[in-house]
Amino acid sequence: MTARTLQGFMELLPEEQIVMERMKSVIAHTYELFGFAPLDTPILELAEVLLSKSGGDTEKQIYEFKKGDTDLAMRFDLTVPLAKYVALYNNSLTFPFKRYQIGKVYRGERPQKGRFREFYQCDIDIIDRDELNIVYDAEVLAVIYTVFNKLELPAFKIYINNRKLLSGFLESLEIADKTVDVLRLVDKIKKIPEAAFLGELGELGLPEDKNKKLLEFIKINGSNSQILAKLEDFDIQNETYRTGLAELQTVISQAASLGIPAGNVQIDLSITRGLDYYTGTVYETFFDEHPEFGSVCSGGRYDNLSSVFMDKKFPGVGISIGLTRLYDQLHGSGLLKIKGPTPNKVLVVTQSSDYADNALKLLGVLRSRDIAADVMLRDCKFKKKMEYANKIKIPYLVIIGEDEAANNYYTLKDMESGEQFKVSAEEMAAKIK
Amino acid sequence: MTARTLQGFMELLPEEQIVMERMKSVIAHTYELFGFAPLDTPILELAEVLLSKSGGDTEKQIYEFKKGDTDLAMRFDLTVPLAKYVALYNNSLTFPFKRYQIGKVYRGERPQKGRFREFYQCDIDIIDRDELNIVYDAEVLAVIYTVFNKLELPAFKIYINNRKLLSGFLESLEIADKTVDVLRLVDKIKKIPEAAFLGELGELGLPEDKNKKLLEFIKINGSNSQILAKLEDFDIQNETYRTGLAELQTVISQAASLGIPAGNVQIDLSITRGLDYYTGTVYETFFDEHPEFGSVCSGGRYDNLSSVFMDKKFPGVGISIGLTRLYDQLHGSGLLKIKGPTPNKVLVVTQSSDYADNALKLLGVLRSRDIAADVMLRDCKFKKKMEYANKIKIPYLVIIGEDEAANNYYTLKDMESGEQFKVSAEEMAAKIK
Repeated sequence: MTARTLQGFMELLPEEQIVMERMKSVIAHTYELFGFAPLDTPILELAEVLLSKSGGDTEKQIYEFKKGDTDLAMRFDLTVPLAKYVALYNNSLTFPFKRYQIGKVYRGERPQKGRFREFYQCDIDIIDRDELNIVYDAEVLAVIYTVFNKLELPAFKIYINNRKLLSGFLESLEIADKTVDVLRLVDKIKKIPEAAFLGELGELGLPEDKNKKLLEFIKINGSNSQILAKLEDFDIQNETYRTGLAELQTVISQAASLGIPAGNVQIDLSITRGLDYYTGTVYETFFDEHPEFGSVCSGGRYDNLSSVFMDKKFPGVGISIGLTRLYDQLHGSGLLKIKGPTPNKVLVVTQSSDYADNALKLLGVLRSRDIAADVMLRDCKFKKKMEYANKIKIPYLVIIGEDEAANNYYTLKDMESGEQFKVSAEEMAAKIK
Repeated sequence: MTARTLQGFMELLPEEQIVMERMKSVIAHTYELFGFAPLDTPILELAEVLLSKSGGDTEKQIYEFKKGDTDLAMRFDLTVPLAKYVALYNNSLTFPFKRYQIGKVYRGERPQKGRFREFYQCDIDIIDRDELNIVYDAEVLAVIYTVFNKLELPAFKIYINNRKLLSGFLESLEIADKTVDVLRLVDKIKKIPEAAFLGELGELGLPEDKNKKLLEFIKINGSNSQILAKLEDFDIQNETYRTGLAELQTVISQAASLGIPAGNVQIDLSITRGLDYYTGTVYETFFDEHPEFGSVCSGGRYDNLSSVFMDKKFPGVGISIGLTRLYDQLHGSGLLKIKGPTPNKVLVVTQSSDYADNALKLLGVLRSRDIAADVMLRDCKFKKKMEYANKIKIPYLVIIGEDEAANNYYTLKDMESGEQFKVSAEEMAAKIK
């Protein structure tokens, strides 16, 4: 039997895994710092539940199968399970409901470099009943900013927009019936030439003068205050447009109050996010020097999370970090600065297995003081044990030989400075703490 | 569309999930304290890889399906994936290799109370090449003892045995050819009457006098030193038996050196563990007052982890905690003492949304000092906001009203003592820290 791991499924070596775990715990800790509570939902769900909201690509990519008479599927995101969860438990939840979830999702895409079939998503969402205050759209910006800083990621910008602006603009041009198609097309503007963009708009049956106005609109640039001023200047009285503009102004102003540097947030009117269900603020995050990584954190505001399951209205706002791909890209490019903690701080080695008991007593003391400690006991030359200590990059080494055992002390070596000390177990614990 | 979660799949409310997450992090932290490094392997594997070692029940319970031309399966434990991992990466690993893994596994059992189809296993294993020192068998005891204490679990005992004792005893009785069947039967001794036990031994074709000797052997009881003395007294010269006895003596003595109280470890010669692949020390853990929970942490020593994948020999020792079931049993019986941290420490409420900016500036300061803080902004009566604060059991409440906004201070309320303070943002951060 050949040992094999499926293509598109990440499997790391211990020293890499430690870094990955560190990233997960930084993300979880930051989400908690902002008042989000953890959630864990099953990876397997009824296929009809997961497919309730999807269409197109999702259905082709989903891992779906029968067990007995039941159609099962593996989740392909954390949003549909959340919609189900809120529909099921809304009577027991306290709103606004702020949850985070870090978990694996599954998409049977064609495997290619940087694409995974099993990958971690790290999501936050804030859900309320009937109406959700706009302040949470700014809060989401603050979470992205903080988590990216704590992860020590490369220089980045969060690009934001409000879908109501473009929708209102299209209404004012009286081409609102094409909104969904136009938003999808606008989402591609950075990837295709302007002429092609105008061509595709034309294919939708839209008149040339309106298409040019649209192009002009989404190309508005400058600082956030310049863009907001230009959006005011358009003097469009359409209500959707006015609401979108007011919301965007509020989010930008509240982001500043929350302490996010202006340089990390940029309005970009071409950001629409392909997904139909966003209705207000939308976010995408890019590394300044690595646009080729694509958006590494995206999301937005939606009106009604659980609409397929129930009539009650649950508006929300949320984002997702695709951690597996992010780790892979950063690791592959040598851009990962964050380090995992060394899991064991102290390694005890003995010159003979006669001193095993001395080693074990020391381990008991150190661990009871919450100091990670390990022993290397093996029938091998002392030199081999030292090689092991160097290989696992241990910060502190304890050696127990004849003299140590006879006179009841330990030799502690600080592996960084090279200094050695003769100490008791208690003195060692105090020194290392 | 009805929102539904599959039967046998645990889904918790936020206040329960916080406790579950706390348990996971205590387990992970304790494993790291003992020098184990984290590992994460895919939930989906090639079916042939997962089924390489199994038989009987496993095949019936496994979630197996085809995607395209590939036979896939969801893992049903963390041991087979580890065997694959070591076979694949052994040239890059440092031995002894100590890994922990906390992850979901899948078994399509008939759903019944306390049985889950998706559940967390929390495993540790120590693997070496060719030979693994006996000290790690004692280390495993220390891990179980420490993790159970840190989880604040009810009074417990770890029952240990060494399979070589019984195997050697059977060899000395010249009935070694029935060892596998006898070990399986011995494993059931606590569940069936003695007469039935002897009857079933008889059905294996074993002579009555030997069966009585066997029953006498596995019923040996007393303190650990009494049992060890009685095992010496048998004066069996069989080599397997002598090795087993020496190993058991060493493990008991080293457990004491590691600081494990004698009362938490008990030799029990009837513990054999059903699984064929254990070859030495075996462990089971029971709550003193709740034997009906069954063994809550089990494992043992094995000779050759990756034998189905390669010729190299990798002996190991490990244990597994079935966390989902453990949580469910303890929670259901009101025995769960461990508490999750409140995810947010400070809640800011405003008497009018005009003061939103004052709230946001405060949040920025608190979070930058690593103090978890949240705002409740909603178009609702102030009374509703106070109800929310009480419902989420927040330790500190900040109120911003007209006076606070005009005079640039914050009112901080310690919700436990009821005391109120007028403070600046910086003073508040210092006070709460």
